[in-house]
Amino acid sequence: MTRTVLESKTKTVVIGFDDPFCVIGERINPTGRKKLAAELELDDFSTVERDALEQVACGAMVLDINSGAVFTNKMADDPRYADNNFVEPALMKSLVERVQALVDVPLCIDSSVPGALENGLMAAEGRPLLNSVTGEEERLELVLPLVKKYNVPVVAISNDDTGISEDPDVRFAVAKKIVERAAEFGIPAHDIVVDPLVMPIGAMATAGQQVFTLVRRLRDELGVNTTCGASNVSFGLPNRHGVNAAFLPMAIGAGMTSAIMNPVRSVEMEAIHAANMLMNHDPNGGNWIGFSRVLDAVKDGATFAEAAQAAAASGARSGGRRGGRRRA
Amino acid sequence: MTRTVLESKTKTVVIGFDDPFCVIGERINPTGRKKLAAELELDDFSTVERDALEQVACGAMVLDINSGAVFTNKMADDPRYADNNFVEPALMKSLVERVQALVDVPLCIDSSVPGALENGLMAAEGRPLLNSVTGEEERLELVLPLVKKYNVPVVAISNDDTGISEDPDVRFAVAKKIVERAAEFGIPAHDIVVDPLVMPIGAMATAGQQVFTLVRRLRDELGVNTTCGASNVSFGLPNRHGVNAAFLPMAIGAGMTSAIMNPVRSVEMEAIHAANMLMNHDPNGGNWIGFSRVLDAVKDGATFAEAAQAAAASGARSGGRRGGRRRA
Repeated sequence: MTRTVLESKTKTVVIGFDDPFCVIGERINPTGRKKLAAELELDDFSTVERDALEQVACGAMVLDINSGAVFTNKMADDPRYADNNFVEPALMKSLVERVQALVDVPLCIDSSVPGALENGLMAAEGRPLLNSVTGEEERLELVLPLVKKYNVPVVAISNDDTGISEDPDVRFAVAKKIVERAAEFGIPAHDIVVDPLVMPIGAMATAGQQVFTLVRRLRDELGVNTTCGASNVSFGLPNRHGVNAAFLPMAIGAGMTSAIMNPVRSVEMEAIHAANMLMNHDPNGGNWIGFSRVLDAVKDGATFAEAAQAAAASGARSGGRRGGRRRA
Repeated sequence: MTRTVLESKTKTVVIGFDDPFCVIGERINPTGRKKLAAELELDDFSTVERDALEQVACGAMVLDINSGAVFTNKMADDPRYADNNFVEPALMKSLVERVQALVDVPLCIDSSVPGALENGLMAAEGRPLLNSVTGEEERLELVLPLVKKYNVPVVAISNDDTGISEDPDVRFAVAKKIVERAAEFGIPAHDIVVDPLVMPIGAMATAGQQVFTLVRRLRDELGVNTTCGASNVSFGLPNRHGVNAAFLPMAIGAGMTSAIMNPVRSVEMEAIHAANMLMNHDPNGGNWIGFSRVLDAVKDGATFAEAAQAAAASGARSGGRRGGRRRA
């Protein structure tokens, strides 16, 4: 069975057909978070550090680190800051160092800038996941050599130079092309985690079925793990969490093995814990029972992050396996 | 594609591979509801009537009518009441008449007593679902002639004279035998709705995967619709609704087409509405958007039944399709 092995300084996380669903925390990402970008511009990492701790306590097994900030004030003083090739490499190094000083989980190095990817790979301890390669020729030629050089797994997004196809067969063909090109570089299929691209169900009624079918094909025909930006599916709809919380178990049932998502949301995390148990990836129900205690605390008025952090701290005190920081 | 057609006096409900998941309301069942049994013993149908209205408003498309009451006081006076063959036929007739005077949805006639099944079939308007036949020889010989005589669909439960097997292959074989025996009576596969039997995940870690695999096989190899007692899966676990709400979308994704369940629970119904949309059985999201308004009212403090009944009444006033009672 396919296993994609990620490592932090001391921990191993496996994305795999026979493993619990891998939750990759998406919150450390200044793209579209203006307040966070403004903080980073001032070398203020307090939100990043809070997001790292909260996400891990809430159940993130991997943290995505995206360096896509726009530094508008610096840009006004120094035109070099208008170029993300200038901004992101240094920022990525800082983000990786700050986060891994605080939490011991594998990282997902996420940027459109090759220099930021390489800086992240150099700064990260263990075996991070690289995010991402696509089927675009330029991107294949830039990213696959990094994947090979640093011997890391990579997220492969199913679009190419013609854009994102609405036809799932075309998206499958793009994924297949990436797997084949990677093989030419000596990169095995088990180090490729395909994102089949989840469309908003409100815009495309077949979006759910497309993903479920694609995930099964990617697994059966290419033998690869899969991931997705799970919340895309509910874009534009009321009560998005309810849609996400049905989508995730269905995707898991179809064979999806990870998602890049916000773990500080109890509704979605509850669905994932239950789905893990229903897939026989929580054989004694121990994780479900532990998670249910967190839900009980939420019903009593705590926020999910508070309740999860309290449970993680109590687990750490009692020698349990939950929780973020591990003392060396 | 397989379609099992049910009818009430004026409405048709299709259980089918290309139709929204069919919710069969389970609440009208005195087995294990002592208070309800005591009411029925006194000819008090007020709880039954409230349950009928609430379940339909909350989204039940079919109502299960189970006559399995034990009349302990009457039994003390008259020993004939110790025999369910004496109690249930008359009770079933009353239940069916009361319920269909109030709501216009197809019924599911549910009893272990052949006389109650036949009385239910005679009293029901339209084309009810019969619940149930098993692979037990005596039951096959008793129930299949009724199915043929009244030309109704039937729930087929995958146990036989050897009991309930923990081996899913045996349960599949039992279902296959029932389909074959039914064919000898001239009953087509599309009138058989197989219950593959859902075990508690807390007692059997593979219970979820067993069901998902069985549902796919039943659909692909026998071409039959499927149903289940959905809440069994979470028996004995904390936060059961969370387990049920992940199980239902996963079962729907695997191909399950109906469940016998409590529809007066917003968590499970939310999961089903979302799963219908994700299966492209709510193409414009209209049902989801309508259901989200009910959820908003629940957040504002209404019970789910109150909010659903208010929405149904408002839909009826505005000529919408939601809602229970239809005026002749």
